[in-house]
Amino acid sequence: MSTYIEQHQERFLSELLEWLRIPSVSADPKFHQDVLRAADYLKMRLEEAGLENVELCPTAGNPIVYGEKLIDPSLPTVLVYGHYDVQPADPYELWDSPPFEPVIKNEKIYARGACDDKGQVYMHVKAFELMQRSQGGVPCNVKIMIEGEEEVGSSNLALFVRANKEKLKADVILISDTGILSNDQPSIEVGLRGLSYHEVEVTGPNRDLHSGLYGGAVPNPINILCKMIASLHDENNDITIPGFYDNVAVLSAEERAELNRVPHSDEEFKRSIGLKDIYGEQGYTTVERIGIRPTLDVNGIWGGYTGEGAKTVIASKAYAKISMRLVPNQTSDEITQLFQQHFERIAPPSVTVKVTPHHGGEPVVTPTDSVAYRAAAKALETTFGKKPIPTRGGGSIPIVAMFKTELGLDSVLLGFGLDSDAIHSPNEHYGVFNFLKGIETIPHFFQNYVAASRS
Amino acid sequence: MSTYIEQHQERFLSELLEWLRIPSVSADPKFHQDVLRAADYLKMRLEEAGLENVELCPTAGNPIVYGEKLIDPSLPTVLVYGHYDVQPADPYELWDSPPFEPVIKNEKIYARGACDDKGQVYMHVKAFELMQRSQGGVPCNVKIMIEGEEEVGSSNLALFVRANKEKLKADVILISDTGILSNDQPSIEVGLRGLSYHEVEVTGPNRDLHSGLYGGAVPNPINILCKMIASLHDENNDITIPGFYDNVAVLSAEERAELNRVPHSDEEFKRSIGLKDIYGEQGYTTVERIGIRPTLDVNGIWGGYTGEGAKTVIASKAYAKISMRLVPNQTSDEITQLFQQHFERIAPPSVTVKVTPHHGGEPVVTPTDSVAYRAAAKALETTFGKKPIPTRGGGSIPIVAMFKTELGLDSVLLGFGLDSDAIHSPNEHYGVFNFLKGIETIPHFFQNYVAASRS
Repeated sequence: MSTYIEQHQERFLSELLEWLRIPSVSADPKFHQDVLRAADYLKMRLEEAGLENVELCPTAGNPIVYGEKLIDPSLPTVLVYGHYDVQPADPYELWDSPPFEPVIKNEKIYARGACDDKGQVYMHVKAFELMQRSQGGVPCNVKIMIEGEEEVGSSNLALFVRANKEKLKADVILISDTGILSNDQPSIEVGLRGLSYHEVEVTGPNRDLHSGLYGGAVPNPINILCKMIASLHDENNDITIPGFYDNVAVLSAEERAELNRVPHSDEEFKRSIGLKDIYGEQGYTTVERIGIRPTLDVNGIWGGYTGEGAKTVIASKAYAKISMRLVPNQTSDEITQLFQQHFERIAPPSVTVKVTPHHGGEPVVTPTDSVAYRAAAKALETTFGKKPIPTRGGGSIPIVAMFKTELGLDSVLLGFGLDSDAIHSPNEHYGVFNFLKGIETIPHFFQNYVAASRS
Repeated sequence: MSTYIEQHQERFLSELLEWLRIPSVSADPKFHQDVLRAADYLKMRLEEAGLENVELCPTAGNPIVYGEKLIDPSLPTVLVYGHYDVQPADPYELWDSPPFEPVIKNEKIYARGACDDKGQVYMHVKAFELMQRSQGGVPCNVKIMIEGEEEVGSSNLALFVRANKEKLKADVILISDTGILSNDQPSIEVGLRGLSYHEVEVTGPNRDLHSGLYGGAVPNPINILCKMIASLHDENNDITIPGFYDNVAVLSAEERAELNRVPHSDEEFKRSIGLKDIYGEQGYTTVERIGIRPTLDVNGIWGGYTGEGAKTVIASKAYAKISMRLVPNQTSDEITQLFQQHFERIAPPSVTVKVTPHHGGEPVVTPTDSVAYRAAAKALETTFGKKPIPTRGGGSIPIVAMFKTELGLDSVLLGFGLDSDAIHSPNEHYGVFNFLKGIETIPHFFQNYVAASRS
């Protein structure tokens, strides 16, 4: 670890904790003021670190925090992307310490957003500071663009990017919003799944009914919703929506073998999340199920009486949030339409079904033969002492596809999280090791990238 | 209507409203003090009406309010049963006026418990007062026993009855906790369905997971719960639990024809609750589906993210409340065991399933050829000017079977509610007409019953 990091790590951590204390939950309007406070805080820290022209760019939603350091037009430009908004923290009761009162325990930072993505964004802020103060300045042009709506679909970012192509001109996009295989085995994500997310509502009777007086003679919307959801998978756990797999890229036997070379043990996987047995689409390994196959998961379901004790009610309405992870060459629009049509079609005539699509995102595969990928791989090899493995992760960073389309730029996914960080879950955390290793690795990326660009 | 009722109806209503203001929700511990206040209030009103030896009989749960008027051991004894506890009132936001701030609008009393069962119990208190003050006293011995745990399974009532057989000795039990077909067509319930109620919990991974990082390779407990619930009915809407129908009494063609003679229109039924189409077990009419067939309904379901917006989570756990309405000669114990075994058996090996039975109740058919039934029928004919029709309702009053077993007594179900009263739903109400008609009818029952017992 560099001397600069050793000398300043306490301050780096306390600044991050201060930022994590602001509950910047973008999905819930009641946190709107906090989202704005989190943006202000970031702006201040970017200025402090030496970024110039730092501003809050207004959007129809939450502002985008932008800053830049342009040293020489003949040098390449790296555009750093991240997000300062976080997932909702509920269920709060499952957190061992409150999600917005960050604590460091066992060398881990516990807070909502600790890893996803405030902790990883803050590595860039501090890596920039390090380059400015201890390495004679950044070795190329840097632009930083941190948005506040990633967890709700980044819809305003796309508009912003489209309207600011000149301002955002760069050679590559650098993103830390993914993970590594383990602290002993660095890796770089090269494939990300897309997303199609829906809320569905099933209405039976026009009011809640007594299950004794009506039960048996009315369509219970919960039973029917369950039946509809159950029908979306067949006995092999394949998704039954007609046309769903039509555009799924089929990997060759060699590509699959390559993919399965990633260190993985089903036993360890089961143990790590307390599973009694492996589960998923037949004919695929766990690594393939996560990396190259599309999925359909219910993310939430509710209806009827959910309080203590027993209430003999037949609800008027039942609801679910249903999302599909997409792989190349599915598109979010195509799958959203297929889902909506299918879900409405399978409803029995006695109920009314409403499908409301939320945000989507496109699946993407990033190149492993680019200058930027090699610069990132070499940086990780330097700081971890081990060559990174390219992996195909399951999460969606929809904006990677959008950057490619709108700006023509590839992204490098230089993330430092671990699968065990519990992002989107209670007790989200981020290793202090990972946070500091990120700050150490990022400047190597810049140096490698500039050097390779020159040659 | 009798002069006494005309003179005192304003007071009768205002006393009832005062009682309805107390939120005696037995299912939720936070209302415990209110439950006790509701019992105290009833005790005071029973004493005022002229009942003697009025007491709050302690149980392991909520007290039973008991009072009596014993005038002559040679005369018959009527034991009146009812309950002062009410269903939970949520979802509160669907009420047009707050559930515990009763109001009278369009000749209807709106409040949780207005009909079920405080309103119907209060008819007995006021009918007793009427007999005492304007008819020279009750014509036979009267015992009144009003419990506070009907909505949570009456488990302590059964123990109380078993321990107090001498005190509760009577000739018949009179209960007003059911309804009539309409205000133009009186009816008497003669069949009640039983109940088996369960809470189920499905656990997949041991913590909430990010659906992108894990989706496709882990058992999603919500999807699996939906699949399990869906499998409980086949394509004819028959219940698939092995042995479920083994003990269901099969009615003869004549009995079914008799049953279907009840005035009923599917069009009107659909219109009254906003259904697009009729729904239920194939081969049965709506009246039969409600009256003589067992059912399985999900009364509540929850799991994952249910807030605003989108959260890409795979929940660790999913829950549902599932209940079955039973018909003769199913028993609650038998069905509870069959359900529990079946539900655990159909779980895939990758998840853990927990089934927790709540309260149950036995189905019952009451005789239509008894002295008491005829006394009730004649009373209704007098006050409504029309002979009542015997009906088989769908609701459960589990204690009717218990009274038969423990005390050897039949019950007469002289209820005055309407299907449209929205009991167990938002905007529960009870017609002022029905409330007053009950007060008018009950004394006729006593007179008819005593007269017939003598002859």
